[in-house]
Amino acid sequence: MTTNKEQYKVHQEPYYQAQGREVQLYEAAYRNRLPVMVKGPTGCGKSRFVEYMAWKLNKPLITVACNEDMTASDLVGRYLLEANGTRWLDGPLTTAARIGAICYLDEVVEARQDTTVVIHPLTDHRRTLPLDKKGELIEAHPDFQLVISYNPGYQSLMKDLKQSTKQRFAAFDFDYPDAALETTILARETGLDETTAGRLVKIGGVARNLKGHGLDEGISTRLLVYAATLMKDGVDAGDACRMALVRPITDDADIRETLDHAIDATFA
Amino acid sequence: MTTNKEQYKVHQEPYYQAQGREVQLYEAAYRNRLPVMVKGPTGCGKSRFVEYMAWKLNKPLITVACNEDMTASDLVGRYLLEANGTRWLDGPLTTAARIGAICYLDEVVEARQDTTVVIHPLTDHRRTLPLDKKGELIEAHPDFQLVISYNPGYQSLMKDLKQSTKQRFAAFDFDYPDAALETTILARETGLDETTAGRLVKIGGVARNLKGHGLDEGISTRLLVYAATLMKDGVDAGDACRMALVRPITDDADIRETLDHAIDATFA
Amino acid sequence: MTTNKEQYKVHQEPYYQAQGREVQLYEAAYRNRLPVMVKGPTGCGKSRFVEYMAWKLNKPLITVACNEDMTASDLVGRYLLEANGTRWLDGPLTTAARIGAICYLDEVVEARQDTTVVIHPLTDHRRTLPLDKKGELIEAHPDFQLVISYNPGYQSLMKDLKQSTKQRFAAFDFDYPDAALETTILARETGLDETTAGRLVKIGGVARNLKGHGLDEGISTRLLVYAATLMKDGVDAGDACRMALVRPITDDADIRETLDHAIDATFA
Amino acid sequence: MTTNKEQYKVHQEPYYQAQGREVQLYEAAYRNRLPVMVKGPTGCGKSRFVEYMAWKLNKPLITVACNEDMTASDLVGRYLLEANGTRWLDGPLTTAARIGAICYLDEVVEARQDTTVVIHPLTDHRRTLPLDKKGELIEAHPDFQLVISYNPGYQSLMKDLKQSTKQRFAAFDFDYPDAALETTILARETGLDETTAGRLVKIGGVARNLKGHGLDEGISTRLLVYAATLMKDGVDAGDACRMALVRPITDDADIRETLDHAIDATFA
Amino acid sequence: MTTNKEQYKVHQEPYYQAQGREVQLYEAAYRNRLPVMVKGPTGCGKSRFVEYMAWKLNKPLITVACNEDMTASDLVGRYLLEANGTRWLDGPLTTAARIGAICYLDEVVEARQDTTVVIHPLTDHRRTLPLDKKGELIEAHPDFQLVISYNPGYQSLMKDLKQSTKQRFAAFDFDYPDAALETTILARETGLDETTAGRLVKIGGVARNLKGHGLDEGISTRLLVYAATLMKDGVDAGDACRMALVRPITDDADIRETLDHAIDATFA
Amino acid sequence: MTTNKEQYKVHQEPYYQAQGREVQLYEAAYRNRLPVMVKGPTGCGKSRFVEYMAWKLNKPLITVACNEDMTASDLVGRYLLEANGTRWLDGPLTTAARIGAICYLDEVVEARQDTTVVIHPLTDHRRTLPLDKKGELIEAHPDFQLVISYNPGYQSLMKDLKQSTKQRFAAFDFDYPDAALETTILARETGLDETTAGRLVKIGGVARNLKGHGLDEGISTRLLVYAATLMKDGVDAGDACRMALVRPITDDADIRETLDHAIDATFA
Repeated sequence: MTTNKEQYKVHQEPYYQAQGREVQLYEAAYRNRLPVMVKGPTGCGKSRFVEYMAWKLNKPLITVACNEDMTASDLVGRYLLEANGTRWLDGPLTTAARIGAICYLDEVVEARQDTTVVIHPLTDHRRTLPLDKKGELIEAHPDFQLVISYNPGYQSLMKDLKQSTKQRFAAFDFDYPDAALETTILARETGLDETTAGRLVKIGGVARNLKGHGLDEGISTRLLVYAATLMKDGVDAGDACRMALVRPITDDADIRETLDHAIDATFA
Repeated sequence: MTTNKEQYKVHQEPYYQAQGREVQLYEAAYRNRLPVMVKGPTGCGKSRFVEYMAWKLNKPLITVACNEDMTASDLVGRYLLEANGTRWLDGPLTTAARIGAICYLDEVVEARQDTTVVIHPLTDHRRTLPLDKKGELIEAHPDFQLVISYNPGYQSLMKDLKQSTKQRFAAFDFDYPDAALETTILARETGLDETTAGRLVKIGGVARNLKGHGLDEGISTRLLVYAATLMKDGVDAGDACRMALVRPITDDADIRETLDHAIDATFA
Repeated sequence: MTTNKEQYKVHQEPYYQAQGREVQLYEAAYRNRLPVMVKGPTGCGKSRFVEYMAWKLNKPLITVACNEDMTASDLVGRYLLEANGTRWLDGPLTTAARIGAICYLDEVVEARQDTTVVIHPLTDHRRTLPLDKKGELIEAHPDFQLVISYNPGYQSLMKDLKQSTKQRFAAFDFDYPDAALETTILARETGLDETTAGRLVKIGGVARNLKGHGLDEGISTRLLVYAATLMKDGVDAGDACRMALVRPITDDADIRETLDHAIDATFA
Repeated sequence: MTTNKEQYKVHQEPYYQAQGREVQLYEAAYRNRLPVMVKGPTGCGKSRFVEYMAWKLNKPLITVACNEDMTASDLVGRYLLEANGTRWLDGPLTTAARIGAICYLDEVVEARQDTTVVIHPLTDHRRTLPLDKKGELIEAHPDFQLVISYNPGYQSLMKDLKQSTKQRFAAFDFDYPDAALETTILARETGLDETTAGRLVKIGGVARNLKGHGLDEGISTRLLVYAATLMKDGVDAGDACRMALVRPITDDADIRETLDHAIDATFA
Repeated sequence: MTTNKEQYKVHQEPYYQAQGREVQLYEAAYRNRLPVMVKGPTGCGKSRFVEYMAWKLNKPLITVACNEDMTASDLVGRYLLEANGTRWLDGPLTTAARIGAICYLDEVVEARQDTTVVIHPLTDHRRTLPLDKKGELIEAHPDFQLVISYNPGYQSLMKDLKQSTKQRFAAFDFDYPDAALETTILARETGLDETTAGRLVKIGGVARNLKGHGLDEGISTRLLVYAATLMKDGVDAGDACRMALVRPITDDADIRETLDHAIDATFA
Repeated sequence: MTTNKEQYKVHQEPYYQAQGREVQLYEAAYRNRLPVMVKGPTGCGKSRFVEYMAWKLNKPLITVACNEDMTASDLVGRYLLEANGTRWLDGPLTTAARIGAICYLDEVVEARQDTTVVIHPLTDHRRTLPLDKKGELIEAHPDFQLVISYNPGYQSLMKDLKQSTKQRFAAFDFDYPDAALETTILARETGLDETTAGRLVKIGGVARNLKGHGLDEGISTRLLVYAATLMKDGVDAGDACRMALVRPITDDADIRETLDHAIDATFA
């Protein structure tokens, strides 16, 4: 089976607004093939950044959404039963190592431990991936790089990366964009005017301040884009904000009231 | 395998009585293909609303009742062993993404985590579904939309949607209809006269006020329809209410007595 | 595979002694195809009642004894591997929905959650059963009805039906028959004379009063029938009662003594 | 596949010494085909009694040693994959129901719940065994009877038979034989003289009095037989008792000392 | 498949130094085919003793290292899928019962419960092994004997043999050899001179006295042999003792210091 | 299947800087084929040492990264289903035992218990590996040696090697290299000048002093190499240290500030 490298290329430039020197630093990390960890809260643009870098570096990108039922076999590959015996099917990590793609393991901490151990030999000087069940040892393509994402707010005692895994990555911190930048993003992504977009960003600010005071997470840029989309489509500002910003994130009556007040005050 | 889109269409208009602007707001969400979360208590009409919108928008609807043993494979698909090797069988989510259906995941929080992670790439700008085991990346049909339901009363610390999932949906709150509307619904669905229907609705009100004071949930519209059906069939009002409203929801002697008194007083 | 409806018919009238209006009320529920929940303690005649109603309505009856290892596949069906590929085998619930049987899920709360969720679309206005693994949507036969049993004494926080399941059923309460009725039952089932049968019923009463005071459950009608059977066969009253009534239900020395005294006093 | 009934017959009379009226009472239970539960401590002769009754009644006996990994399929049967498709293989319970054997489930409480639920329809008026996976309903052979064993000392809150299972059985209590009887048993089984056998029985009595005071269980008749066997073979009494009676049951230094003293005193 | 008995014979006399009358007592147990349990701490020679007895009795020996993932099938056998259907493969216990070997289950308490229950019928008067999945009942070969090992220091409330298992075995207690004997063993196994060997044994004594005071187990004879081997090979006494005796068994700084002092003092 | 020994040879001398007499002592352990345990914190060079010794001894090296989902079959081998039946596939441990490789089980304590028990017969005088599922007993090649790694900082009550496993190994303690040596390593591996490399080592020292005071582990040599690599590539010292040393190992604001201060002070 020959895998077509091109199908994993990001063909269109993703819209990405740099928040600091992260683009240059990622380029340095990639030049030296250091494994990379992107950290930050839900919906702040971690996946978008990785997609943007893959486009900028013109490398294939293979993304895997990790989950607690994912096994090493889901990453590495398995035997399929066929009419004339079994056939080996490469998993996404193996494919990436073979073709020289950036392999992005999204929320890797969710996966089972065997999944995190399997990446170890790919992230040190060996740059190899042993396919134990197939009896093959893959040397990673020179272009291959491993990237993982990590949300510090989620980790618990029971579920965290081990230091022996963490200490294999150079790390980037992400956060929500600042108000001016986020306003530009909203306006550019939805066509909403900058003034109204700025008001939405202000409501986002109120919610983010409530994090830890009744909210697990603030309102993400993604949800602000949802609200802007609905308003641009003619939906009433109050309706759009309630359904896109408040109702999805909390059922707490007090928090809802606080946020609803902020909405009414902002768009009065 | 060609899937017949028509078999998933809702051919007859479901009876649905709007409680507010939810029909218009859902239409705006669908126009912008925002993923939608419908929230509310047991039996208040969430599934009926989604069915009604599918009919109104004339789109196929694929419903999946989620449960804690459901895996990502149940949604996405799996290989079947056949006489001449294995054959891939699309799961309901994959089918919906291919044919452009509204995919409705009922009580999604019951499912295992891998199930909720699998919907992530379908609910952001990518609108894709990677079939890792098949090595295929599906781009969702332009008509595809994802809808999930969520009962806020059920969630516990152990079992809740993660914020990284919640923040991918615009949300609609549902509740039991108000008394006048619910009376109309009972009368229309069962043929019972409005006066008697109104009395049943009053008993429903009593039970809903006991929620949190000995009852986990109030009496749903569905159970009121059951009682109305039995009474229309000639069953004695007390018998019908006891067997359709009280016995199903509680074994607590005090609550039963309170509700039985309300029934006797109402139909005395 | 054509399933012979007749094999599931109850051909002989089961002996059933009504305790109230339950036969008429069940008939009304069946006429309107309301799903039914039968509640009550161990061995009080719940299964017998359902069997009797199936006989009276002349409908096929398919009974499934639920257990905590039962999966949705056990109810709905599965693929069997055969010489020339796989063959689908309907489960008991699917068979019942196809042929129009009463499907009786005994002690449904014991089953895993996926089992209880799978019955939801069969218990609302849809009356459908999606066979996700087969890609088929079954519309239930007009004669189909779902019945479940439920023992309120057993439920714990960890293992109870969810309100979203409970609120799909009209419910019937059962309890042990009153003394006169139970005496008649013993005499009729075993041929024992009414006087001796009455004495056994008295011992049953003593044990039922100990429920919650050292006994988890009282002595069921079934065990009284065992004792009557042994006595009719010539076994000494004390021996029969000890081995059929006391030894099976408790190892507590105090409770045993209390019950043994009651036996000796009754048959002195 | 025709199963040869004869292979399950007990061809030689097992040595069994009745302790009371249990033989006659079991015969009455069998005449009326009541399911039977045999209760008692480790190694007191429960299995021997059932074997003896099977011999006396001249019925085939099928014994299943239950364990916590045993599933309903292990009892009922399963499909085997063969060259030309799958073949059904009856489990031991199914075989017993077909040929009319006494089916003895040893330590049934160890088995998983699905195992105990599967026996329910075989233990009430239905006397049937549904093979759900095969779509067959077996009517038990008229000679079939179910027997289970149960050690009251073992049960915990987590692992006990449910009352809905217990109340399907007539129960027999067993205990260690009294001293005279046990002496006869030792002498007869090993050829040891009665005087020495009586001394061993005395040591057994000391250990049984320590039950609950440092010992979980007393010394079983089986271990006394071991010691007698070794002594008859010329092993020194102290050595035989230490290795057959004391070392197997405890590592507690104080208890060992107490028992060793008893041994030395007895055989001094 | 004919199994070659000879391949399981112990062809060379294992070096074994008796500590008491255990050889004669084991012979008596074997003559009467009593099942045997060998108890004692890690590395004190339990396995060596069983190997020696198998050699002395000239019987085949089949050893199984038990573990918590071992199932009854791993012991008894299973069906293998082959080109023309399935083929049964005897497990080690079944092979031993067929050919008349001594079957040695090392650390049996580690295995899952189904494994310990499966040995019950082999350890009482029946001496049979039912292969439920194959529908075959094996009568053990007259030479067959079952031996299990057991480390009393390991057992916890969660993981211990049940009394109903323990009371099927005659038991042998083992412990580390006394100083003189252990010195002889070291010298004979490694060729080290007796004086130096005696010093190593003294260090072993220090460590064994620390058991329960910071050490879970003392230093085994095996580790002393390691140290002697390294010293005989020219390694410095301090280096050899540190790497073979201290570093493997503890990371506790205080315990290490105590042991290191003992080493330095002994070899100063 | 013939396995090519050469493919497992380490063909290029790995860069390894001895910290003490560990090379000579390992050679002595290998000469006597003692199993070896290498202990030490994350990223201190344990794997590099084993690789170096395999190169120096000119023996094949087979490395297995252990994880909690790894089973004995993953080590030993399994049957694969093929067109004409099943085929046995040796696992890495079996291959190593056959060809005489050094088998290195990295972080063995992560593996399931059956994995650690399976190595027992390979680590005592038997030097055998029973393939129970294949019915074969492998005698290890004379060159075979088993090496395991172990991080003492990770072990908990729930997850530790049993003494019966530990006492089969000679052990080597590892730690981070001292400052001068580590500076040399950084300079040699990345080409950075010694002065700057020395400053990085100083920052590493600060972090290692925080272990147990807010940090689970200190900064590994590996991460220092990352930082040196980035600096050599022209990245600003502060950026390089933050992304390679601080961000990967902690999200604690106080610890971050402490480390950031140390970085700024060092490179001011």
